[in-house]
Amino acid sequence: MPKIQTKRKRVKFASDNVAGACPEVLEAIIKANEGDSTPYGNDPISKDLQDKFSEIFEKEVIVFPTASGTAANALALSTMTPSFGNIYCHRLSHINLDECGAPEFYTGGGKLVTLNGIMGKLTPEELDQSIGGKGIVHHTQPSSVSITQVCETGEVYQLDEIKKIAEITHKHNLNLHMDGARFANALVSLNASPAEMTWKSGVDVLSFGATKNGCFAAEAIVFFKKELVGNTAFLMKRAGHLLSKMRFVSAQLDGYLENNVWLKNAKHANDMGKKLSESLNQHKDIELVYPTEANEVFVKFPRHMIENLNSNGYEMNDEDFEGKTVRLVTAWNTQQKDIDHLLETIEKTN
Amino acid sequence: MPKIQTKRKRVKFASDNVAGACPEVLEAIIKANEGDSTPYGNDPISKDLQDKFSEIFEKEVIVFPTASGTAANALALSTMTPSFGNIYCHRLSHINLDECGAPEFYTGGGKLVTLNGIMGKLTPEELDQSIGGKGIVHHTQPSSVSITQVCETGEVYQLDEIKKIAEITHKHNLNLHMDGARFANALVSLNASPAEMTWKSGVDVLSFGATKNGCFAAEAIVFFKKELVGNTAFLMKRAGHLLSKMRFVSAQLDGYLENNVWLKNAKHANDMGKKLSESLNQHKDIELVYPTEANEVFVKFPRHMIENLNSNGYEMNDEDFEGKTVRLVTAWNTQQKDIDHLLETIEKTN
Amino acid sequence: MPKIQTKRKRVKFASDNVAGACPEVLEAIIKANEGDSTPYGNDPISKDLQDKFSEIFEKEVIVFPTASGTAANALALSTMTPSFGNIYCHRLSHINLDECGAPEFYTGGGKLVTLNGIMGKLTPEELDQSIGGKGIVHHTQPSSVSITQVCETGEVYQLDEIKKIAEITHKHNLNLHMDGARFANALVSLNASPAEMTWKSGVDVLSFGATKNGCFAAEAIVFFKKELVGNTAFLMKRAGHLLSKMRFVSAQLDGYLENNVWLKNAKHANDMGKKLSESLNQHKDIELVYPTEANEVFVKFPRHMIENLNSNGYEMNDEDFEGKTVRLVTAWNTQQKDIDHLLETIEKTN
Amino acid sequence: MPKIQTKRKRVKFASDNVAGACPEVLEAIIKANEGDSTPYGNDPISKDLQDKFSEIFEKEVIVFPTASGTAANALALSTMTPSFGNIYCHRLSHINLDECGAPEFYTGGGKLVTLNGIMGKLTPEELDQSIGGKGIVHHTQPSSVSITQVCETGEVYQLDEIKKIAEITHKHNLNLHMDGARFANALVSLNASPAEMTWKSGVDVLSFGATKNGCFAAEAIVFFKKELVGNTAFLMKRAGHLLSKMRFVSAQLDGYLENNVWLKNAKHANDMGKKLSESLNQHKDIELVYPTEANEVFVKFPRHMIENLNSNGYEMNDEDFEGKTVRLVTAWNTQQKDIDHLLETIEKTN
Repeated sequence: MPKIQTKRKRVKFASDNVAGACPEVLEAIIKANEGDSTPYGNDPISKDLQDKFSEIFEKEVIVFPTASGTAANALALSTMTPSFGNIYCHRLSHINLDECGAPEFYTGGGKLVTLNGIMGKLTPEELDQSIGGKGIVHHTQPSSVSITQVCETGEVYQLDEIKKIAEITHKHNLNLHMDGARFANALVSLNASPAEMTWKSGVDVLSFGATKNGCFAAEAIVFFKKELVGNTAFLMKRAGHLLSKMRFVSAQLDGYLENNVWLKNAKHANDMGKKLSESLNQHKDIELVYPTEANEVFVKFPRHMIENLNSNGYEMNDEDFEGKTVRLVTAWNTQQKDIDHLLETIEKTN
Repeated sequence: MPKIQTKRKRVKFASDNVAGACPEVLEAIIKANEGDSTPYGNDPISKDLQDKFSEIFEKEVIVFPTASGTAANALALSTMTPSFGNIYCHRLSHINLDECGAPEFYTGGGKLVTLNGIMGKLTPEELDQSIGGKGIVHHTQPSSVSITQVCETGEVYQLDEIKKIAEITHKHNLNLHMDGARFANALVSLNASPAEMTWKSGVDVLSFGATKNGCFAAEAIVFFKKELVGNTAFLMKRAGHLLSKMRFVSAQLDGYLENNVWLKNAKHANDMGKKLSESLNQHKDIELVYPTEANEVFVKFPRHMIENLNSNGYEMNDEDFEGKTVRLVTAWNTQQKDIDHLLETIEKTN
Repeated sequence: MPKIQTKRKRVKFASDNVAGACPEVLEAIIKANEGDSTPYGNDPISKDLQDKFSEIFEKEVIVFPTASGTAANALALSTMTPSFGNIYCHRLSHINLDECGAPEFYTGGGKLVTLNGIMGKLTPEELDQSIGGKGIVHHTQPSSVSITQVCETGEVYQLDEIKKIAEITHKHNLNLHMDGARFANALVSLNASPAEMTWKSGVDVLSFGATKNGCFAAEAIVFFKKELVGNTAFLMKRAGHLLSKMRFVSAQLDGYLENNVWLKNAKHANDMGKKLSESLNQHKDIELVYPTEANEVFVKFPRHMIENLNSNGYEMNDEDFEGKTVRLVTAWNTQQKDIDHLLETIEKTN
Repeated sequence: MPKIQTKRKRVKFASDNVAGACPEVLEAIIKANEGDSTPYGNDPISKDLQDKFSEIFEKEVIVFPTASGTAANALALSTMTPSFGNIYCHRLSHINLDECGAPEFYTGGGKLVTLNGIMGKLTPEELDQSIGGKGIVHHTQPSSVSITQVCETGEVYQLDEIKKIAEITHKHNLNLHMDGARFANALVSLNASPAEMTWKSGVDVLSFGATKNGCFAAEAIVFFKKELVGNTAFLMKRAGHLLSKMRFVSAQLDGYLENNVWLKNAKHANDMGKKLSESLNQHKDIELVYPTEANEVFVKFPRHMIENLNSNGYEMNDEDFEGKTVRLVTAWNTQQKDIDHLLETIEKTN
């Protein structure tokens, strides 16, 4: 990509997308590469995914594998939001701040109505008060609600919180989308089942993230409410997201789900997140900003500490960081020595 | 993908996208998977691609790797076509018939003006006559021309043919796009240099295909006319095509270009195509429909021969095939025994 | 409008949109201007229109008045065509050539599949053969058919021709739109009832033109198939076509329909068209190109005759007219003396 | 419009769009209706408008007449906002709340970033802090700022307030749009010149409202920064807003501007607004919510007073009005007796 510059030398903790794929996912791709196969998702691996997901979610679901989370989110939202529709979401949500308008593009101009929530989560009360204007021709029409799990402040929606959001959503005849970019991390954090954290709590469509937690480029749109599937296959093709050799996306998901690799990876990342959080929290000059509930740690460092980290190869908030929150993310491949190195570098700050 | 059914058992020759990735590309992915790296194309492999492509094309180019050819085409066209613009293309072109309206989606409603051409190629005369209405507010505005190389009938545009199309295109102040889904096959067929077949002949933007010729999912938009780049990075992100672990797309292209793997693959596929074409052409009941100039063979089989092939596991035109043309495609991994098996199956038709 | 230049001095016959409004329509506006009224179409005149149209069409219809024909067409088509849908239409159709891509804009990227037809009309055979690819994810999806009545060559679809087009349309589960920019002229020409020329022949949605035939700026979308209405009200508002003082559009339609003003206007225009056509046809150097079936006359003049007309203030084909067809249009206000003046000017050509 | 129901009997004060056209505008239409004229804005009246507006604004401007304010706003914004762009506006702004997503439609998915402001106005400080993320591919890109004059709370931006907003806007290389739905009312209120209230204070493009202040359906997009005009003519045609008999929109503007009709109308409306405001303010149970600076009066009535008004034919906030603010609007045709009638009705509340 020509436009983007980087000076980052030590990307560890910058995000969980700096990690590569885990061995099991790589193996699955290598295995899928034997012989020829039918293109465009008509291969056996892609087909089997339907059953695999249905089993995991304890319900017959419809699954569309995609290569990016932004595509999964935007496509999912476009199935539940007309061009004149409102998507209610947190003001900090990835779909609002970090997808360069993908939901607007895919919905043909839908409006993201941003809510303040409490920390990173929507509240049912604010949501309920915000939904209005239904049937009045002057107003964009309430259509869908989107929550992020793990949410943008690293917190995890509890099951009853999801249920209450879903209740309000459905009371107004809207549909509920979950951006599960860190779905596995949330699941492990809650110690809940995939079914409990989704359709049993009222989620209608899920963006199932896998890239960050051990894949190369693999996500999936999971429809619990089948009547929403509609024209997804056409919209996906039309967006250039129906890959010809789709089997290699499906194979990643296959290797990811097999033998609970995904849950093991997430558990490891969460455990490392907890360790990192606790270690940092013990430092008198470092302030934890949000509770660490999965694999993201939000802290405030004093300025000279950030400068020291950056001069040692890390890159913490490139500009204007004073008073800003720094996010550190652990991944499936984070090791104790990575945490140690960070802490040591911090210690060296005088 | 839930919506699509298949009965295909022997996919060989169905397309070149039934093949997996070649060993060198797989190796490149495995290698890229070591350690962490900066996301969103800011990794070293992605950055090096700029130079690598510039070297291959003997000109400083701007390159955007993508995971699908439809995305590459639609994004490329959206940089040269406003929402009220005309894209002139062959009526059989992939962008017109096989991308479910992706160019229309990405351009925000651009119009594909379809030309008849001669066989699969546009002619400069028809193109010249079709372009009109510039500056008149009632008419969609002439904006871009798109040609496919190898074109949809398996023919290859000769260099002077490209030049003439480009001349007309530029005479009207439009821009020229080349859909190079089988770019390497055309290059080998013409025995031309990448520069000669593109910017030296007047091509402004190229969709550089690699998936079919040995990658998993890797294409690239190559800008020869830099002023067209414009907002491509934003449009790509907004479409969900800026993958977080972009290095794995770039790594494929890296392995593909290194040591002329791409040209070797294409030469092999073309050689196999020639063999297949000659073998079939010797059969008295089989009629060659278009000249075989790269790796696609278009033939007419008698009906009972198709039925025999299908009953032997092949799948040649599922329905209504009488009088229809069947396309057979060879790939980087096609072997002589595959051709022999096909011919033997044909021989068995009584 | 700053961008458009004109040298036209004698606009008579250039189109029927050069005429102003007829007295009855002007009266209706003046009357509607008394007192205040509810905005956005909630006024009594707008409401009464629903019944008025239902009576005229002998069926309960849903009507949306609009200020432009392009808006009526594009909105109508957007109710029956998804963003990945095909609209089948004549290659010469106004929606294809003269609306600067409005159908593509309103449908979010729909594709106009253009048919050759015979002269200006679609044929059921070509339509039938063109519709294909349903349910296949690679192809834009057949969605709607649009015919123009009076069509672009001045011919009028006969009732049985409409019926056959409708039959093919509905056989493929598509919907049929009629662009009735000159609806009244066609009606008078056929001596048919509004019901016969529309829903009784299979038309699902009509763009009811009135501007050209005696209004200032008034058209209407008329839904015979109510389930297509869908979100029209929102789409219209969102396009800026729900005028706040909508009563003045409705009042025009009211005055237009009252006392058969519309039919009288159209009859007059058609009669004048016939006279003009016959007069021109008698001239040995003038060739009638299409039969004159309503108020449009298509002729070929020799070049010097065109030059003479233009030098006398007319403006017949501004550029490159050799061998081109000139269209002359009569209107509700065309007078015998206008025809005489034209003929005299022609006579003066030496 | 079929979908919308009304019970309103006494629409006076409901809005200024309940009034018809003033006599001068009606006269201009009647006069423009004599004879034929060139369509699509190529008529003399439309052409003269360019000079007329340039004279009024003391600068050579480019003007596009439109039939609706929503169209004017959305078109104007689409010239300064790409599909991935941010429009900064007040959360209460008409473009955000009352145009059913028209800006999103016309920009192809632009994002309205809503600011809280102070009462109905944006503040330069909040605007300055909100603009960010330029050049970063993940974020929608800051593109334009839109303010409403008279703003949505009936307040008028002072010249120095506009200048400060413009300063911030231009500091970030964005463009400034003014939604002047009540432009004349603001002008009269400020006792400023059109130039002072627009380009001299930094406004780049203006939606010049005329409908509410004495026209039938006439607004205009006025470009002070000519390089923004771009493809407006095509975008307008494509949206169905280039009326064929455009001269009747232009004629309205002509009659409106001639002899300062527009300023006289606005002065009258503002005077009536002031009277209404003062009269209501004297009532001990009625609370003025915002200062009355033009022709809109925002008050809180006790519930039983609203009920009484409604039972006497007025319609003040149809539902859920407790604690809500009621807006009363005076117009060019409001008379003292209208105010008296309202006050008398209020007095009758026991």
